[in-house]
Amino acid sequence: MFTPFSESGQPALAVVDQIVETLVREGLDGLYVLGATGQGPALSLEDRKQVAERVVNASAGRVPVIVHVGCISTGDAVELARHASEIGADAISSVPPIFYPCTPEALFEHYRRVGGETDLPFYPYHHFMFGESMLADPEYPERLLSLPNIAGMKITVRDLFLFGILQRHTHGRLNLFSGADELMCHAAVSGAVGAIGTFYNLFGPTCQAVRKAFVAGEFARGKAFMAVFQGTIDRLLRSGGVYAFLRTAMKLKYEIEIGPGAAPSTYGTVSWKDDEVRAVIQEVEEAGRGG
Amino acid sequence: MFTPFSESGQPALAVVDQIVETLVREGLDGLYVLGATGQGPALSLEDRKQVAERVVNASAGRVPVIVHVGCISTGDAVELARHASEIGADAISSVPPIFYPCTPEALFEHYRRVGGETDLPFYPYHHFMFGESMLADPEYPERLLSLPNIAGMKITVRDLFLFGILQRHTHGRLNLFSGADELMCHAAVSGAVGAIGTFYNLFGPTCQAVRKAFVAGEFARGKAFMAVFQGTIDRLLRSGGVYAFLRTAMKLKYEIEIGPGAAPSTYGTVSWKDDEVRAVIQEVEEAGRGG
Amino acid sequence: MFTPFSESGQPALAVVDQIVETLVREGLDGLYVLGATGQGPALSLEDRKQVAERVVNASAGRVPVIVHVGCISTGDAVELARHASEIGADAISSVPPIFYPCTPEALFEHYRRVGGETDLPFYPYHHFMFGESMLADPEYPERLLSLPNIAGMKITVRDLFLFGILQRHTHGRLNLFSGADELMCHAAVSGAVGAIGTFYNLFGPTCQAVRKAFVAGEFARGKAFMAVFQGTIDRLLRSGGVYAFLRTAMKLKYEIEIGPGAAPSTYGTVSWKDDEVRAVIQEVEEAGRGG
Amino acid sequence: MFTPFSESGQPALAVVDQIVETLVREGLDGLYVLGATGQGPALSLEDRKQVAERVVNASAGRVPVIVHVGCISTGDAVELARHASEIGADAISSVPPIFYPCTPEALFEHYRRVGGETDLPFYPYHHFMFGESMLADPEYPERLLSLPNIAGMKITVRDLFLFGILQRHTHGRLNLFSGADELMCHAAVSGAVGAIGTFYNLFGPTCQAVRKAFVAGEFARGKAFMAVFQGTIDRLLRSGGVYAFLRTAMKLKYEIEIGPGAAPSTYGTVSWKDDEVRAVIQEVEEAGRGG
Repeated sequence: MFTPFSESGQPALAVVDQIVETLVREGLDGLYVLGATGQGPALSLEDRKQVAERVVNASAGRVPVIVHVGCISTGDAVELARHASEIGADAISSVPPIFYPCTPEALFEHYRRVGGETDLPFYPYHHFMFGESMLADPEYPERLLSLPNIAGMKITVRDLFLFGILQRHTHGRLNLFSGADELMCHAAVSGAVGAIGTFYNLFGPTCQAVRKAFVAGEFARGKAFMAVFQGTIDRLLRSGGVYAFLRTAMKLKYEIEIGPGAAPSTYGTVSWKDDEVRAVIQEVEEAGRGG
Repeated sequence: MFTPFSESGQPALAVVDQIVETLVREGLDGLYVLGATGQGPALSLEDRKQVAERVVNASAGRVPVIVHVGCISTGDAVELARHASEIGADAISSVPPIFYPCTPEALFEHYRRVGGETDLPFYPYHHFMFGESMLADPEYPERLLSLPNIAGMKITVRDLFLFGILQRHTHGRLNLFSGADELMCHAAVSGAVGAIGTFYNLFGPTCQAVRKAFVAGEFARGKAFMAVFQGTIDRLLRSGGVYAFLRTAMKLKYEIEIGPGAAPSTYGTVSWKDDEVRAVIQEVEEAGRGG
Repeated sequence: MFTPFSESGQPALAVVDQIVETLVREGLDGLYVLGATGQGPALSLEDRKQVAERVVNASAGRVPVIVHVGCISTGDAVELARHASEIGADAISSVPPIFYPCTPEALFEHYRRVGGETDLPFYPYHHFMFGESMLADPEYPERLLSLPNIAGMKITVRDLFLFGILQRHTHGRLNLFSGADELMCHAAVSGAVGAIGTFYNLFGPTCQAVRKAFVAGEFARGKAFMAVFQGTIDRLLRSGGVYAFLRTAMKLKYEIEIGPGAAPSTYGTVSWKDDEVRAVIQEVEEAGRGG
Repeated sequence: MFTPFSESGQPALAVVDQIVETLVREGLDGLYVLGATGQGPALSLEDRKQVAERVVNASAGRVPVIVHVGCISTGDAVELARHASEIGADAISSVPPIFYPCTPEALFEHYRRVGGETDLPFYPYHHFMFGESMLADPEYPERLLSLPNIAGMKITVRDLFLFGILQRHTHGRLNLFSGADELMCHAAVSGAVGAIGTFYNLFGPTCQAVRKAFVAGEFARGKAFMAVFQGTIDRLLRSGGVYAFLRTAMKLKYEIEIGPGAAPSTYGTVSWKDDEVRAVIQEVEEAGRGG
């Protein structure tokens, strides 16, 4: 879920309500907040707590809320985990320690402290920017299963052999979510139980419908949609203006202003015309209907 | 397709006939010979010609034969391409120049000469060991489409976003085959029209049936099979004895002796007991039946 | 420079004074504070400000102080840059935006805002964990030179061809510091004007003397020392207990307690016996004397 | 050493004599033939034998000759090793098995057979295209030292920490040559006993003099030369016309026609004007004189 910002770069709490209302109304199965897309790591602890609380209150139990608590320091992540529990979040998630490369021992000690701080289900989040080979370590699955409150993982990798092998070596005891939007249907074949990603803010119902149909046997529909979806993501990535597109698109489709963002990755000189953005939205949604 | 060897390391031509007969009888859609699995690059040009000719003669037009002609030097690849045409092969394929990293200009000049030498359909073969980013070059698709006799590609990558994007940017004008056995079904979602890989020597009918069922809508069957298939491939890769396993397995299942191989990658101290091999074969085939 | 911590994980300001006093007394040419080694990114903005101020006050103008202000968000880095200027630091430095991969445009916009916030000399800090190829971008040198207050860079890469080429393409207008301790002398050959790194907290005078002698023509002394120094670093990295070693070593050599650290990378189960640590210190220092 | 080719792509044996004569007269310490630069892997076994024999005869014992015998198959490499011994070469060298990725066991079994085939000193040649991490394997040094006739290595990596660590873990029992021209002087600091590379065909005496001076204490001269040398190599690599440059340069400087090459990597559309090439040669040689 996006975190919206005012022009001065502060979280726009009133808009948080709007987004939650929209995503719940659109029928999404849950909310994953303050992750990379939600720019949690770029916010102060205080801001993260306020946004998390606002989301939990706004969703009012209609869908589960997973709060991402990943930080540079273990102490901060532990503090956010405790807060998530206090405000009534349904689960917590965490990337590996940001910035500092860790030995496996240090990584799992970090996870142990974060996951063990509360009774909430814990979902480590592995993104390929932290290295893919770490997931292939023969000891990784056993260590993962021994973490307190471990419930699953969010995994953003393009190598779905790694994804599938992890699924296998954890003996079906974990709920693995796929974080690579561009491989949403493919990941289902490797055992992903769901998908958590940026584009579901914009294309939630479409993606949900396609994924469900694909898993139910509509192979051709999934394949046709993924071709358009991959093409769109590729075009956006090459444009250098992914965030600019998403900002305009949320405004046009949902009348939601997500603002300028807080992380430097939202900077860019690329702008998108409304008509271009509308055309992209229309193309993806049409592809999703499988016409 | 495996190339069989005598104990002294020479191609065992009589066994070539056996393999062809077996694979044709098992119902495979075609034969891809002298690729990495077929150890073409480890053989002399003379040996490669003999094996190619033997396969073409043995298959006798019952299935199409693609001859891999990839070499270190362009001249050698051109010579093998010409030979493939003369003996009546149905298509040729080639990896990028082996050993020498090339600029895009040099790579496509190489392909232009190889593909242009005959009238046969030409299938460049890209393996991730040559780099994945090359496929993401915005000019790659256009260059590919301009090659003489270009008909498709064999692509062995685990990043199926790259696979799908290439499919999209070549506008459906190419037949893309997936070379990563461990992602056989996943690649179909990115538009692969078929699969070419090592394990189809052993599990051809099983994989063919699963892939067909998956594409026809049996999602759960494909998913369940891929879990077992990925698990098997992972176990073999970690064992350090893939070739030793395959050699024993071909003997047990088909009474075919593929021999010690010619490439150093077949060396290894790992051996497999017959019972272990039988158990692996049985597990994969049972998974394929989707019981 | 290390940032010392109390057992509860808070910066130990009194120990900051001890470290500054020791390093100044040992004759180091300057202090680089709150970088990766100084665990700046793992601290709150408030803690970072306190430590920076303490260092500036303690050094009292005897050596220049460079304050690392790198953060996840641009806003935070800008705030720290302003503070560094206010407290009288001599220069600021910053890694690329932590966590969020940036396009070159976004990266340099980030640097422009951070470097332009004050009149202090600005030293971007590139570590190989942010990718080496970025430095090879043909537009990188020009963009770097156009940054406000740009004075040089700290570069931690092992590919000294990249280092040298950057030196060349910036036409000698930048002061490039090498951040890879294990290549301290090698980097001097590629034009590094100095070295900034973890191990100079412990081996400052030794490394300073060797580097100076090497540059003055004592090739054999530099070579012999680097062999021991590389061997030591390799041994520590393989041990998985670098931080544990450094903590014990600082205590034994300087009676300084740097504490348990704040970043998860300091976790580890490896411990070092005092005698082992003493032996390592002695070996490096003897090698440095070039006996 | 370059292998010269006729316009039709055959080795030009008469020109081999010219090159040998020139390099010996220029004072080089030895000849390394049929490596990557010498395009050995792109030639037939027969051609490789002819070129090797011609070099050995032409050099007539005035300098040692190392013959590179690396191949895709072990059998071919063994055959070339035997031939090198028969014709009186002084040593053999071999890259890892080309094309086929090997387990460490398979790699060292390959080396064992090649190195054990003759009594000649054996120099494995590791290039970073085969992966750098292999060299960091803790078991690599021990395995290396146990190879028959092992005398040293040629190592082309830019990570000179890896180079130095290998030196250390082989306890000075091996002669390590550096293969990265762009780090010629830097590698000496990590213990390289000499340098083997492409550009020494053209700049042999200059590089030899600079390296010797650098090791003898002329730090500033080495540094100044490396800046120009690195700049030149960088410019050539970016031009996409390295081979075109070298071909013209050898003609202009030594009146030697090395021809069009056999490997596809020599293809390119970039051409160099004689004046440009002369200017580059002059710049490097002037830098070498340390004026």
